[in-house]
Amino acid sequence: MSKGLTKRADDYSQWYNELVLKTGLAEHSDVRGCMVIKPYGFAIWELMKEELDKRFKETGHVNAYFPLFIPKSYLSKEAAHVEGFAKECAVVTHYRLKTAPDGKSVVVDPEAKLEEELIIRPTSETIIWNTYRNWIQSYRDLPLLINQWANVVRWEIRTRLFLRTAEFLWQEGHTAHSSNTEAIEEAERMLDVYAEFAEKFMAMPVIKGLKSVNERFAGAVETYCIEALMQDGKALQAGTSHFLGQNFAKAFDVKFADKEGNEEYVWATSWGVSTRLMGALIMTHSDDEGLVLPPKLAPFQCVIIPFFFKDEEINSKLMAKAKEIANELRQAGIRVQIDDDDTKRPGFKFAEYELKGYPTRIVIGPRDLENGTVEIARRDTKEKSSFSNENLSETISTMLADIEKELRNRALKYREENTSVVESFEEFKQVLEQKGGFLVANWDGSAETEEKIKEETGATIRCIPLEDNLPSGPCIYTGKEAKHKVVFARAY
Amino acid sequence: MSKGLTKRADDYSQWYNELVLKTGLAEHSDVRGCMVIKPYGFAIWELMKEELDKRFKETGHVNAYFPLFIPKSYLSKEAAHVEGFAKECAVVTHYRLKTAPDGKSVVVDPEAKLEEELIIRPTSETIIWNTYRNWIQSYRDLPLLINQWANVVRWEIRTRLFLRTAEFLWQEGHTAHSSNTEAIEEAERMLDVYAEFAEKFMAMPVIKGLKSVNERFAGAVETYCIEALMQDGKALQAGTSHFLGQNFAKAFDVKFADKEGNEEYVWATSWGVSTRLMGALIMTHSDDEGLVLPPKLAPFQCVIIPFFFKDEEINSKLMAKAKEIANELRQAGIRVQIDDDDTKRPGFKFAEYELKGYPTRIVIGPRDLENGTVEIARRDTKEKSSFSNENLSETISTMLADIEKELRNRALKYREENTSVVESFEEFKQVLEQKGGFLVANWDGSAETEEKIKEETGATIRCIPLEDNLPSGPCIYTGKEAKHKVVFARAY
Repeated sequence: MSKGLTKRADDYSQWYNELVLKTGLAEHSDVRGCMVIKPYGFAIWELMKEELDKRFKETGHVNAYFPLFIPKSYLSKEAAHVEGFAKECAVVTHYRLKTAPDGKSVVVDPEAKLEEELIIRPTSETIIWNTYRNWIQSYRDLPLLINQWANVVRWEIRTRLFLRTAEFLWQEGHTAHSSNTEAIEEAERMLDVYAEFAEKFMAMPVIKGLKSVNERFAGAVETYCIEALMQDGKALQAGTSHFLGQNFAKAFDVKFADKEGNEEYVWATSWGVSTRLMGALIMTHSDDEGLVLPPKLAPFQCVIIPFFFKDEEINSKLMAKAKEIANELRQAGIRVQIDDDDTKRPGFKFAEYELKGYPTRIVIGPRDLENGTVEIARRDTKEKSSFSNENLSETISTMLADIEKELRNRALKYREENTSVVESFEEFKQVLEQKGGFLVANWDGSAETEEKIKEETGATIRCIPLEDNLPSGPCIYTGKEAKHKVVFARAY
Repeated sequence: MSKGLTKRADDYSQWYNELVLKTGLAEHSDVRGCMVIKPYGFAIWELMKEELDKRFKETGHVNAYFPLFIPKSYLSKEAAHVEGFAKECAVVTHYRLKTAPDGKSVVVDPEAKLEEELIIRPTSETIIWNTYRNWIQSYRDLPLLINQWANVVRWEIRTRLFLRTAEFLWQEGHTAHSSNTEAIEEAERMLDVYAEFAEKFMAMPVIKGLKSVNERFAGAVETYCIEALMQDGKALQAGTSHFLGQNFAKAFDVKFADKEGNEEYVWATSWGVSTRLMGALIMTHSDDEGLVLPPKLAPFQCVIIPFFFKDEEINSKLMAKAKEIANELRQAGIRVQIDDDDTKRPGFKFAEYELKGYPTRIVIGPRDLENGTVEIARRDTKEKSSFSNENLSETISTMLADIEKELRNRALKYREENTSVVESFEEFKQVLEQKGGFLVANWDGSAETEEKIKEETGATIRCIPLEDNLPSGPCIYTGKEAKHKVVFARAY
């Protein structure tokens, strides 16, 4: 049965959009650039949140909540920061509507104009560091390890569901430290948390690295990132962790007294991942049949479908068995759903759950009842086999673990096959056009070279890998002595 | 040791503000009307969220996320709704800043003016029903049972931490149904969920009732509510659940085809609780020493304080014992913290944890090590006693259950003592002045009478109780035949 889904090979971008819409993950709202995250999509995001939140708490962080609004003047306090965010922000100028002269509609009340405009937070460094000024006096108040789950707004013109939207959901950690070293350690620790989450929960391999100056967060001294490779050969930045130095402490005058009583500016980090991870998840594993979800992030890891016939007695036995199995699986901690809708045919259902990416599917028919068996299909390989209905929780648990491993290996293999070491700019352009993917190349370290390569090819430096970044020859573009071996790609 | 906290009897309002600030629950931000929810306050809110979310899911609801922005014209579509919310909303008019002529600050770019202004959601009925139009075609798409956790903005001028802030956090359920009856059942079901949460988790007794027409949600056919009584004799509306009839379906043209193929407008409910619950929690149980938290909502249910001496060997034994106890308690699911700070004196710590409302405190001194004992203090009664250090998880669990019961009983007793049945308007005024609390009185059912009583006394009808609302005599104000026996109070 056709799901009417465009094939990846035909139009990857179209495939992605259709997939997000057809699986009920999200849709565009009437409000320009804003999406509605639908229940199925939100359930995946909740699983991500839950696990990330646990990892943040395990590394000593606590949650808090800061205002949605940032006074306009705050944005200007850190020069690079305002440069990065002023051009794409939503501005609140008034605080009241009134009835229009027509008596029906409403208009903005000109008398309710704010003295100072408020910006909807595009990120919260400024409002948070303005608050930290009152919270930090001495080294005893440090480190301050705070995270917030929030919505933020960046006024993007060209939007794509999950990947780039005007409003999105994210978490932003903002920490304060008494030393340079400790802040850098924190930024690296959180990068590791993100990388581990991506690899263990999303089954998505990532490269850990540093951004070049051009790609750094507005206001950061260093930006660490994790970069993943999508199935169309484009890179996706999946998370960033910034070492902010003393930039925001200086902008907001946040000092602490050390043990000797000397005053010093506080050291900072910030780090975040967003609903963009949903886009990364979809594009890493899914196929032409629909979504493929790694089991740990599947809202339901198994669907049980009784194969109904026109015999009430048999059907009620099938349902009883389905419930029995569901109970067993639930007790083993497996998220399971029974589909007992008798108005839809099994074939329709199979396609539906494939589309939605349920990792496993158990089908029970009358013959299974006699034989003590069930049929289990797995989403990743689309294999179907008959299994004994004894000890099914173990069968499914083992299969889920196997699916996860398979997805991770597949993604890793794809990345390996699509990572090319290139020795010259000619080769660079050729590989980029013909194959895409990650291009590993020697770079002279100058922003100018990076800019020129970007102009000529559309590829940017995704990161200077934390490991294995020593140059193996001259810069591919200038022929000058290379500073680093870096990873280029076209990117989302 | 004095905590410098104003006494409730001296100035309840001042006591409340100081308590919220000194315990680190929240503080005012620099942004007018917006608060910062600090980590300790947020940890309590997270416990509330977790439990409410669980109950929503158990009653069949799923979470989703809708845009922060509401196009101005949407608000006008439901007449009563816009009337209720237009006067206090934040309006986004522009989407870009630019560098000011001085080259330093930024100004709103006049060229980046939105064609239609966007309102920051004060509540999401309009944007959600505009979305539901595309999701609902037939009875098969119903019921739609969706909840969202979000921030909302209502431009309040006079704000109080947690109780009334321009931005606050809440959840809003928005459900769609194929019949009147089913929607009313849903509204009542969610009221019950709120009431049970308030009573079982917050140890806060509530009266379930219906709002009078004057106090109804803007756009609702009926507003159900739970009302609690604070320690200063004022009422607090702790949650509302609205039966919206077909008002929003009509405003946004949302119809469904029933089984016979007839088109009908969809029936709706919405329901919400907010960070206001934090205010209710604080004001229900806390005392002149500080916060008192019901154990289920205490971020830490027990603190262990080793009573350090100037003897390293003893101190390390004390710490070892503290850790052993902490492990035992954690395994029993008790949230426990050890305070091993040797720069602060025990007396200081005791006051600090009393202020922060930790339900129980375990102190271990050298003599305890010899005797196999610990000293346990409970926050609610301030009793201290010596206990065997065997099986402490059971001792503490039992004590926590007992504290919860004690708090609930105390709050119930307070409410009973401060609920007065009044027979005349003279008595009404007298009791309201001298005692406050809930005033149960017969009312003729007219909005005019309600309005006059409010003007003359400041008291409003908190609710028409769902139970026991039959009048026992004539209206106390007009002497006319009464329609209901209702609950009046001055309110937050």
